[in-house]
This record gives sequence, structure tokens and C-alpha cells, in this order.
Amino acid sequence: MLELQLMKGSLFENVLEAILDLVNQASVNCSASTGFSLMAVDTKSVAILSLLFPSEVFQHYRCDEDCSMGIAIADMVKALRCANDDDIITIEADDSNYNDITLTFESPKKNCTADYDLRLVDAERHRVQIPDWQDLDSKYQAIIRMPSAEFMHSCKHLSNIGDDVVISVTKEDVTFFASGQSGCLSIVYRQNETLDKSEEATATLVDMREPISLIFDLSYMNSCAKPFALFDQVTICLSTTVPMMVEYKIKEKGYIRYFMAPKVEIEIEEEEERKTENEEAGAEGNKTRGMKMQD
Amino acid sequence: MLELQLMKGSLFENVLEAILDLVNQASVNCSASTGFSLMAVDTKSVAILSLLFPSEVFQHYRCDEDCSMGIAIADMVKALRCANDDDIITIEADDSNYNDITLTFESPKKNCTADYDLRLVDAERHRVQIPDWQDLDSKYQAIIRMPSAEFMHSCKHLSNIGDDVVISVTKEDVTFFASGQSGCLSIVYRQNETLDKSEEATATLVDMREPISLIFDLSYMNSCAKPFALFDQVTICLSTTVPMMVEYKIKEKGYIRYFMAPKVEIEIEEEEERKTENEEAGAEGNKTRGMKMQD
Amino acid sequence: MLELQLMKGSLFENVLEAILDLVNQASVNCSASTGFSLMAVDTKSVAILSLLFPSEVFQHYRCDEDCSMGIAIADMVKALRCANDDDIITIEADDSNYNDITLTFESPKKNCTADYDLRLVDAERHRVQIPDWQDLDSKYQAIIRMPSAEFMHSCKHLSNIGDDVVISVTKEDVTFFASGQSGCLSIVYRQNETLDKSEEATATLVDMREPISLIFDLSYMNSCAKPFALFDQVTICLSTTVPMMVEYKIKEKGYIRYFMAPKVEIEIEEEEERKTENEEAGAEGNKTRGMKMQD
Repeated sequence: MLELQLMKGSLFENVLEAILDLVNQASVNCSASTGFSLMAVDTKSVAILSLLFPSEVFQHYRCDEDCSMGIAIADMVKALRCANDDDIITIEADDSNYNDITLTFESPKKNCTADYDLRLVDAERHRVQIPDWQDLDSKYQAIIRMPSAEFMHSCKHLSNIGDDVVISVTKEDVTFFASGQSGCLSIVYRQNETLDKSEEATATLVDMREPISLIFDLSYMNSCAKPFALFDQVTICLSTTVPMMVEYKIKEKGYIRYFMAPKVEIEIEEEEERKTENEEAGAEGNKTRGMKMQD
Repeated sequence: MLELQLMKGSLFENVLEAILDLVNQASVNCSASTGFSLMAVDTKSVAILSLLFPSEVFQHYRCDEDCSMGIAIADMVKALRCANDDDIITIEADDSNYNDITLTFESPKKNCTADYDLRLVDAERHRVQIPDWQDLDSKYQAIIRMPSAEFMHSCKHLSNIGDDVVISVTKEDVTFFASGQSGCLSIVYRQNETLDKSEEATATLVDMREPISLIFDLSYMNSCAKPFALFDQVTICLSTTVPMMVEYKIKEKGYIRYFMAPKVEIEIEEEEERKTENEEAGAEGNKTRGMKMQD
Repeated sequence: MLELQLMKGSLFENVLEAILDLVNQASVNCSASTGFSLMAVDTKSVAILSLLFPSEVFQHYRCDEDCSMGIAIADMVKALRCANDDDIITIEADDSNYNDITLTFESPKKNCTADYDLRLVDAERHRVQIPDWQDLDSKYQAIIRMPSAEFMHSCKHLSNIGDDVVISVTKEDVTFFASGQSGCLSIVYRQNETLDKSEEATATLVDMREPISLIFDLSYMNSCAKPFALFDQVTICLSTTVPMMVEYKIKEKGYIRYFMAPKVEIEIEEEEERKTENEEAGAEGNKTRGMKMQD
């Protein structure tokens, strides 16, 4: 027996709305200890999404035994949209029924109840192996933490110029660069050296272990930036050997993580040449190597 | 000589905007005693609309002798949209001119006047015989009065799931049910037994003479729900022998009435079986028979 | 060296947004004395746009020597949209570089800078000879000054009825008239005879030297009305021998000027007949002759 309770307009619903354009069907696991976790691959198999909602995210969370199920995100979102403002939403799954789950919407006036029986999809088909964070951390050459609204704006502006972004990290700054027919745009975030506590929340912080420069598809970057309104900060972890991770933290243990491979080396070099011509800023430290989506 | 005066943004204009997507050309009758009445059939001849604006709806109402005319609703709405905020709108028809009516917009500053000569259409072609309310009332097995916003929300949510809605009335409650690929949604409004005066306006009241269950096309239901923002309450009258009537009352004597036939029996039975499987809630009392649009 | 500084959301940016749908590529001239001027022809060569931003429009304006360049308006607007709220925008052109100009966006927090290198287009191809205002003034038979919001509303409403507008000026009033399938609309602005100072800003003033009646394409009129939100007043100058000019004044010396030829005589006469039939208002004074776009 799984029972989750949430309010209309809760973080859970808003996060699902934010991932809707990237992923279609997802594999969900619930357990008493870790909470509600969800994994999905985008339709073109370029990005992997991993989500953990700890039990504290829900108004009420009960999970008698671990369970897995496959969910069509769009249908789940459609179901959640059926709630009116102020409705209490209860999601229930029966251990003996793997065909559907029930969402119940109760109005505060108690005069109306709605039940949505949501058909489940095949969970196994959508399961993905995500590398352990412990293993990943040591492989990142640079970790950037920045205000999520600035990340979103940068991705949006750059995608007006071109299809790809070059993200380059040096000790002093992080540069997002795109070029296209109309010209080229380069957005530079400087590492703030001395910060008092109050400034830290709105600052861009860079933990650069090695200089790095990688190219990513801007349409995917825009998808990764979608949850910006729900979280103040975003963390971008870059590596030449494992996929980039874009992470939003949910409370203490939860998260939304997007994993995405950069574009391959040959294009990177061409792009870098182009960038050098345009910007007269070399990217010598570039050690990008081809990499597989999973390590 | 017919002369109507109204303000920009009046009920008259808003109601025409609300019926615009359902009906195209309408037959209008004006008389000194009853006011401005309008009848129209939707383009697919599934729904009939009947409207009565009593003379009190207008700022000024003068009708020297009864007159009929055919109006293209979209053109009338386009004409009314030409008024600027605060304009006084005067609609004039000449007894000797059956080709057009004139809308005059006068700005409160008096420095600008606009005249719109609206071409009329053939009134006869759009005249419909609507059964008398006196006759109809006794034929309804159930009459539901509910907040119009809840009616609209229910129709909207259900049409995200499927194409049809099953409306079932028992002594205790009214159920709106739809099913589709993603699952099924059932919205239940409970009859409030004990209500104080202040609650009555927001309650759902059911006058059930016989249990009844009927199927309707949700796209038409959505059209019937359109005027929800203009009226607090909607009344839904269900019958197995005459078309459903959805009614919004305008002041004391006026109304907007939508008449719509349910879907035919054979489909209803299939739908009911599907519903029974999904919901394990039988609908034994169903006596739905085929019926014609007009009795 | 050219250096312009402006704030996000400034008049400069808003004006470019307003002319975006009419013109594509423009020829720009900057000088220390007159400021930033821009000329463009619409893609169908029906309308000419001439703009002058005096140096006071900018927060900072430096122009060491006169310069010309070709700008793709859409790309410039795209570049300006990259600024975040509160950003300071600097536009720089190098006298030795005719390939691109640089827009720099600096956030007030100083932690982020963005550079947009905007590719220039061929300036010569878009240069237009605009007749001198001194020469033009004497050729106008009528000059109308009216609130720009009323001009915009009239154009919008008329374009719901038909494709063309007939503008007729007599000593007493200005009439905008359109007709189409659904009927015809005639909007009359009366000349206010006695006005106190406070009323003058919202009044319609007509300087009629000779009665005149001309026909214009409403889609172009709508384009001319686009900047209505940025300026209180618009001036419309009508002539049978030179193109109509629609003008918005920017501070003391600046302006946006749209020049547009009326539709040719043969159509005008037919339209006039139609108007006469519909309105029973003759337009005897009409002396419209064929004219070329440039005098």
C-alpha cells in the first residue's frame, strides 16, 4: 500500500510540469526510507533524468513495502491538473494492482470528490542505471553553482543565437558562448572572490579542479533550466569523462538531476576554432575526450 | 423602430462572446413586452440555443412594434468589439429596413462617434421551434443546480480524458464520468442535506424524480459551460425523452438555454459496461431511450 | 568610435520592437550633431520609415566621426532582448570595423557581463532618399493631430471590417471609413473648436488647408499605429501629391516618420462611390491624383 498526500500547486506537481517537455515515460520507485524516486530517458536518448522526492515533500507519506511502477508523465500531469485550487490530492497504489493508481481530489468544502484512475505503463522498459554520486564526484573537473534564474536566462538568450553552447571554465570565470548567423553571444560569470554570507545565495561559485570547455545542445540545456522558478540555485558539474550533471536540490536529501553527454570532440574543435576567431580568447586547457552516456 | 442602449462590456456583449463558438447565425425577435430573444442551432445541428434578454438588461429599450431579423453572431460581436471602454452603444433598427441595423458608439468625451452598419442575414432560415418550458418541466427526471464554475471545471477536466461524459444522478449524488486511454475520471457532487441560507449559493442541489444516466458529447458540454464567468449558478435538466437543458438565468425572466440530445442508447450501454468495469459502480436505473432533438 | 549607452527597456529598444514587423534591414547614420538616424523600406516597398533618435535619448552618446552602417532590425532586437532587467547596455562600433558592432550588457551586481557581436549588413542597399520636411510641409492639404491610442484603435477596428481605409478631412471633422462583407464602419473625429490647455493633449486637432479624401492599405496603417503606447500624440499629414506622413515626435528634435503612398485613383473613385451609397455622405472635394512614392 502506497499513499501520498499533497496540496494542489505543490512542488511535486510543479516539478513534473517542468520535466514534461523532456521525458515521456518514467520508472518510479517508492520506499519507506528514501522516498519517491523517478528515472527517465528523453525520447532521443540524449539526456537522463533522475529525481528524488524525500518523504518530507509530501503532506503525508506512507509506503508499506518497496514498489516500482511505470508512469506516463504527461498523463500524471493531466491528472494532477484536474485538482482545483485548495484541493487535497491523495495518490494511492495498491500492492496487488499493477495496472493503475488512483488520484483522489477532495475539495475543502467536502461537497465534491474526484477520482482519477491513472493507467500505468511498463516500468521495466524505462529503468536506467544511474552512476552513484559518490563515484561521479571525483570525475568532475569543474563544479559551478549559480542562481537558477541566471542559468535559465543565459540558456534562453544563447538559444536565440545558435543551436549549441560552449561552456568554458577557468579559475576566474565561467563563459557560456553561442554563435550563429546574426553574430555571437558570450556571457561571462566572474568568480566572486570575497563574499559575505548574504551575497553567497546570489553569487556564482566555481570549484575548478582543471580548466574545461565542453559543447552542449541548447535545446536540452533549456530543458535542464526549466525548473528554475522552483529553486534558487542550480549546480552544473562538468567532466570530460562522464556526462554533465545539472542538479537542483530538493530539501536536504532530494534532487532533480539531469545527465547529458557533451557533443563529440571533432565538433568541439571546430567550434573552438570558431570561438577563438570570434572572441580572440583561446581555450587551451581543453582536454575533452569522447565519452559514453554511462561510465 | 427598435432602439437598444448598452455600455461597453455589458452582459449582452459578454453573452454573445460566450455563445460565439457554438452558433453562427441566429434568429432574433424583439417585442415591447418580452424583450430581446434569440434562437440558433449549432453548425452540426446537435445543440439549440435559446436566449432571452429582458428589457431591463439594456440601459434603454424601445421597441415600437414586434420585429424579427437574422444576425450573424460573429459579425455582431466584431461590431460590439469596436466600442472603446466607457463608450455608450446604441443599436437601432428601422422598421422599413430589413437589410442592416446600425450600431453607434459614442465616447463620453463626445469628440468621436462611430457608426457600424451591420448587414443582416435571412432570419427565417435560422428560426427553430423550442418546446415550451411549461411542457418540458414535467418531463425531466432530474434537475441539478450547481455553481457554474464547478460545472465548467468538471467539463474541462473530463474533456482532457475522453470525448464523452456520463452524467448519472441518484438520490445522494451526481456523477460526471469520462474515460480514455490514460485512465478514467469520476467527479462526484454530493447532495447537501442540511444547508443554511449562506451556503445555498455555492451548494449543489439535486431534484431527482427518477435515477437517470445519460451520455453527452464533451465538446458541446464545454460550449454550454462557456458563460460560467457571467453567472453564479447553472441548472442542468435531464430527461430520457426530451433533450437535456442547461440553463443560466438572466435577472428574473431572462435566460440562456442550451438544448442538447444525449448520445444514442447503443453507445450508452457500451459506455456503461466500460464504466462498470472501471468503477465497479453499476448504473442499473438507466432507462435511456433514443430521442429526437425536438419533442 | 561610436558609443551609445542605454538602459534595458528604454525608448530606443521599444521603438525598434514597434517597427520590427514593418521593416527588415535598415540603413543607420550616426553623427555628433544630429544623433542616431535610421531609414528603411518595408519588404514590399510600399512604406518608408525614417527615424531620428537625438543624442538625449541615450544615457551616454559619443560619436567621434560620422558613420553609416546596415542593421538587420530583427537581429538588433534579438540582441537587445538578451539584456536582463536593470542591465546597462552599451553599443559600440569601431571606425575601422564595418563587419559588426558590439552590444555589452552589464548587470548592476557587476558579477556578469555579456557581449553580443552583431553582424552588420550592407548599408548602401537600404539607403533611401527622404524628401526634406521643409519641402513637404507646404504640400500637405491637411494635418491631423490626435491621441495615438485612438489612432491605433480606429485602425484596428477598421481592419476587422475591410482591407482599406478612406480618410476624409473636412473643416469640421476627420472620418475613417472601411467596408466589407459584414457591413461598414465609419469613425468620425470632430474638430474641437474651443479647448482649454488641459484638454489639448487628448483632443483631435485638424489643420485643413483643402478638403481631402485618400485611401490607404489598413495593414500598413496598423504598422504605423504600432508605437502608440510609447507616445501620446500622432500627427497624420495628408496630400494628393506626396506620400502621407504619420509622425511621432521623440523629445524636441527626434521623430519616427512613416511615409506611405495612397492607393491609386481608379480604386479611390470606386471606393468613394461605395462610400457614398453606404453613407450618403459625398466627398466632393476629392482631388486625389496618382503620385509616386518619392517626389
